Amino acid sequence: QPADAVQLRSWAAACANCHGTHGVAEKGMESLAGQKQDELLKKLLDFKTGRKPATLMHQIAKGYSDEQLQQLAGYFAALKK
Amino acid sequence: QPADAVQLRSWAAACANCHGTHGVAEKGMESLAGQKQDELLKKLLDFKTGRKPATLMHQIAKGYSDEQLQQLAGYFAALKK
Repeated sequence: QPADAVQLRSWAAACANCHGTHGVAEKGMESLAGQKQDELLKKLLDFKTGRKPATLMHQIAKGYSDEQLQQLAGYFAALKK
Repeated sequence: QPADAVQLRSWAAACANCHGTHGVAEKGMESLAGQKQDELLKKLLDFKTGRKPATLMHQIAKGYSDEQLQQLAGYFAALKK
């Protein structure tokens, strides 16, 4: 596991509020677990740049560096669906 | 109104997801409308620096500059309770 696994889990913890624990969403939210890393990253970067419209995700994505977003995408891609 | 009122409203729009439209929350979330600007700003800065624990607010606050947080605090302080 990458050295900052604990840090990675704490970045990802914020997502659980809407996307469920372990990235598996309940009420109609998108599940993150097991999505392809590059697809997840593209969405996150598009949110961050405003290319992809959102109610909250554009603002949340601004709180992460691109490098953090890449690590987060990898984190969720590795989770079991 | 400050020149970037439209920008300010769009920053504040993200808050509506949990804090309700016009800063008046329904389900147990904290209402923002009419809170004192300096109290709101202190909370936001404490979230941003981690002094105030949170599930999501710490990450959201990181997406705003301190100056933006100050303008947001002023925006919600000016709303009618």
